[in-house]
Amino acid sequence: MGKLLIVGTVAFDAIETPFGKTDKILGGAATYIGLSASYFNLDSGLISVVGGDFPEEYLQLLRDKKMDLSGVEVVKDGKTFFWSGRYNYNLNTRDTLITDLNVLADFKPVVPDHFTDCGFLMLGNLHPAVQMSVINQIPKRPKLVVLDTMNFWMDNTLDELMEVIEKVDVITINDEEARQLSGEYSLVRAAQKIHKMGPKFVVIKKGEHGALLFNNGDVFFAPALPLEEVFDPTGAGDTFAGGFIGYLASTHDISFENMKRAIIYGSNFASFCVEKFGAERMFDLSQEEIQRRLKQFKQLTQFEIELTH
Amino acid sequence: MGKLLIVGTVAFDAIETPFGKTDKILGGAATYIGLSASYFNLDSGLISVVGGDFPEEYLQLLRDKKMDLSGVEVVKDGKTFFWSGRYNYNLNTRDTLITDLNVLADFKPVVPDHFTDCGFLMLGNLHPAVQMSVINQIPKRPKLVVLDTMNFWMDNTLDELMEVIEKVDVITINDEEARQLSGEYSLVRAAQKIHKMGPKFVVIKKGEHGALLFNNGDVFFAPALPLEEVFDPTGAGDTFAGGFIGYLASTHDISFENMKRAIIYGSNFASFCVEKFGAERMFDLSQEEIQRRLKQFKQLTQFEIELTH
Repeated sequence: MGKLLIVGTVAFDAIETPFGKTDKILGGAATYIGLSASYFNLDSGLISVVGGDFPEEYLQLLRDKKMDLSGVEVVKDGKTFFWSGRYNYNLNTRDTLITDLNVLADFKPVVPDHFTDCGFLMLGNLHPAVQMSVINQIPKRPKLVVLDTMNFWMDNTLDELMEVIEKVDVITINDEEARQLSGEYSLVRAAQKIHKMGPKFVVIKKGEHGALLFNNGDVFFAPALPLEEVFDPTGAGDTFAGGFIGYLASTHDISFENMKRAIIYGSNFASFCVEKFGAERMFDLSQEEIQRRLKQFKQLTQFEIELTH
Repeated sequence: MGKLLIVGTVAFDAIETPFGKTDKILGGAATYIGLSASYFNLDSGLISVVGGDFPEEYLQLLRDKKMDLSGVEVVKDGKTFFWSGRYNYNLNTRDTLITDLNVLADFKPVVPDHFTDCGFLMLGNLHPAVQMSVINQIPKRPKLVVLDTMNFWMDNTLDELMEVIEKVDVITINDEEARQLSGEYSLVRAAQKIHKMGPKFVVIKKGEHGALLFNNGDVFFAPALPLEEVFDPTGAGDTFAGGFIGYLASTHDISFENMKRAIIYGSNFASFCVEKFGAERMFDLSQEEIQRRLKQFKQLTQFEIELTH
């Protein structure tokens, strides 16, 4: 069974969209990544931190999805990381209303013994120093290390971020972040430059416009599934990453051909995630609906053309 | 041999991009559509109008690509339609600097006898009354009528436009225009509403983000080919439409499966068009480079996933 270690936030989110708003609900990158990867029956562990205010019930929800939480520290007298955001009318942009780091500010991740030999490591969006600390606690390099990050770390901790980028196999960022990191507007050129920073694989997420996978000269594209209604995009990128690495960990195959499938699986899970507030939709997907939607992805993208040259 | 009739502008364009600017060069929707469709060895005819200032040399360029220009009126004492635009730094938006309708203002299209039995009719972006006049001059309904239009006609001549929309099989518009026409933000819902206006097939062009083909419940997506450099997007949408209808006319097959291929061919030609200023790149493509790029489209989008349900 593939062993997958995920480091990232487990948090409270409060979300406002044109369709409604939530109180504090279960959120965080590691939550979404873990939920998405849970559909692959892996030996998955989370590394994160929460405060004493975090409901045991939420932790149990994650344990019920077979996540090992021995790496999730509970700081009894601290408060859980809290993020609040408001989406604009078309859900394409959002304003962050509140970011209370709370216990995340002093987070020192500890990799449980059971996961020091993990084959697959997912570095969710966090301070690069935390990501590096996790890398350094794993004596034998995992088969695949995937990094997610964001513009905030490029703006504020670029040197530390570059050290992490140098050590990973795959980086997942959005199109604007790829442009910022590389200084190139063309995503083809941006990927070329980012390859030189370390990652052999560059995944550029374009939200409703799909995702690109670059591996030197090779490129693969997966669209987002056109949906009648998108309810809440929160966590879609993390859900994508969880499906991506979850599929790779379950197949133990990191070839470009298999990564294409992983991109499709990631896009598939993300298409579910956006259908309800927060992570709600990700708790009880059936294998049948997952497969049905994969079929939709095939119908959406596959064609037959005979080449004459 | 498929008979394709194209109505649209033949014009002067002056284009400014971050990479340079042109004097008045050969432009116009019918020009781009005709050039793109010319690679399918059809019996193609253009219906348009130019002024006495239009160089015979430009007309000869089109004749050399086997276009029948007997439907192109030359108004000796008139001036040719002139459009000038400036693109912003990332080429995603542009400002129109000049639109001189000139001879286009009084254009009365006349379908040459040889084309009154055309099997395929492409209504390029023009006043809907001109498009309707062409439809009405064709006694036997063509096998396929494709309409291109834009927000300008939605703003100013909506009633006339709706009458044309009711009569066509395929409409090609961009995402914002689909939203405007339908009043729906979701493109899936927009397509549903537009189906009800008449067209069985709805093609939504998203520029660098690809194109969607809707046919009631079915949907197909083609990405734009990721390019290292986009030089000038002018005419890309018309080039797409020309490749789309040209392929369909050459295969005489308007099934959904074949339309998928047509969408890929259209996207393929559009990827060439943007590589140079204006229509320059579209004059001398080799079958070999067309096929090579089709292969890139396959590599970009095709994957194998076994479904278990």
